[in-house]
Amino acid sequence: MLYLIGLGLGDERDITLRGLEVVKRCSHVYLEAYTSILLVDKPKLEALYGKELVVADREMVEQKAEEILELARNTDVAFLVVGDPFGATTHSDLHLRALQMGVSVQAIHNASVLNAVGVCGLQLYRFGETISIPFFTETWRPDSFYEKIKLNRSMGLHTLCLLDIRVKEPSMEALCRGKLIYEPPRFMTVNTAIEQLLEIEERLQGGVCGPQTLCVGLARLGGESQYIVSGPMEELLTIDFGPPLHSLILPGHTHIMETEMLHHFRVTPETKRLAVKLSDDVSDGSAEEE
Amino acid sequence: MLYLIGLGLGDERDITLRGLEVVKRCSHVYLEAYTSILLVDKPKLEALYGKELVVADREMVEQKAEEILELARNTDVAFLVVGDPFGATTHSDLHLRALQMGVSVQAIHNASVLNAVGVCGLQLYRFGETISIPFFTETWRPDSFYEKIKLNRSMGLHTLCLLDIRVKEPSMEALCRGKLIYEPPRFMTVNTAIEQLLEIEERLQGGVCGPQTLCVGLARLGGESQYIVSGPMEELLTIDFGPPLHSLILPGHTHIMETEMLHHFRVTPETKRLAVKLSDDVSDGSAEEE
Repeated sequence: MLYLIGLGLGDERDITLRGLEVVKRCSHVYLEAYTSILLVDKPKLEALYGKELVVADREMVEQKAEEILELARNTDVAFLVVGDPFGATTHSDLHLRALQMGVSVQAIHNASVLNAVGVCGLQLYRFGETISIPFFTETWRPDSFYEKIKLNRSMGLHTLCLLDIRVKEPSMEALCRGKLIYEPPRFMTVNTAIEQLLEIEERLQGGVCGPQTLCVGLARLGGESQYIVSGPMEELLTIDFGPPLHSLILPGHTHIMETEMLHHFRVTPETKRLAVKLSDDVSDGSAEEE
Repeated sequence: MLYLIGLGLGDERDITLRGLEVVKRCSHVYLEAYTSILLVDKPKLEALYGKELVVADREMVEQKAEEILELARNTDVAFLVVGDPFGATTHSDLHLRALQMGVSVQAIHNASVLNAVGVCGLQLYRFGETISIPFFTETWRPDSFYEKIKLNRSMGLHTLCLLDIRVKEPSMEALCRGKLIYEPPRFMTVNTAIEQLLEIEERLQGGVCGPQTLCVGLARLGGESQYIVSGPMEELLTIDFGPPLHSLILPGHTHIMETEMLHHFRVTPETKRLAVKLSDDVSDGSAEEE
């Protein structure tokens, strides 16, 4: 049996009792490590599970999927995913391949950023299509997601923007010189996401957002150092949200209760002081994997 | 501190380690029991937590919110919610009132139906606005959600339909006779949802759905007896999905991997046999609270 197990969003204690029970009895345990990150390091997970974890990067999952699935045909194999197992396309791919090979699969769900964003007060059922914002490069500055935000907003719906994560990406410069070297991990900040959106707005002039547009920045959602601030884009640009992961929401039309909750998370001098404090705390403590 | 704790979707083992730790140290523990149901009964939860639960119905949460929040000002109070704490508007309301009263709140997230539906193979980021389908009555046959499905489908997006739950609803007939009597709980089935949608289609003729429209019925998502079938509406109408809760998805445009996953869950003679079996098993076993 292949168990796809969600670890939730914070640290080792966010696994469910059911998930922990299963991990403990599996013969092989893989930890997916490229579509998200947990705010805790591998040894802590291993101590809790009482067994060794194999970190599975993108290469491994894409190239060795068959090997993992063959193992799962005869023994219990756990594939651990930060958040919920179906937050990222790759795990759906593994799921499908398993079913096609006749290997049984069971998912053990957990919180994902897609539902945990509800903590900011915006109602989950009033979100439109979720978008992903990739890092701009010198030559690649895509804007297809801009139209989706526009559509969501035209219907009064909120837009959750998932921000780019680059883990174990081969360096193109090195590849050109015939070497396989990996870039250091990069996680898009709320600030970069806003800068990119404002650049696209300037280019396309679609009236989707501007410096005064209300948005919500969320950092380390579900973790102890969770940090949420709502305010105009230009103000959020001045805030240090600290270590990853970050997400951004562009609210659509807000109902009275939503408006009041966002007001609670607005930018204030106190918010800014908290940001600096959190940023220090987290770098000292629980985010060694950065 | 008020802790809003998600219990996940299946049984008592779907709470997270963090959630269990907190429940065990809280002086008062409320179990929300009207926006969803867990596939397990209260005594099992109490045995695991080692303490008594107060079942909080809609009346209680709406009328005694202040009392609960005053308790939370001085002691640790847990408010347990099936799924994730922010799946339903009422809990956001409690959250907001707490913040307004200056009572600290911490959310402990968990899986909700909004992300667990990913298990059927449809990509979560390709869902549009979520809709709720209420039970039709003789005189009230609303159709505002029909337009939302239409919009989602016109953009190629999937639509998750949350199906009505009626728990502890006062009987109107009895009220008219001056008596407060509660109706037995009712949970909308996939079949009723499809019937209602087809009725609206016949009335409005908007081309949103018809007997041949592909949809996905999901029952007891995240539980051991989870049951998922995809197929044309007219075929799903013939299937007994068993005990609650049920949900329905109307897929939009499906990518190749999504198409293949839905194919895996299609109606077959085997699917139907499984349905009958599951239906029997669950009524014998873990759903005593129905």
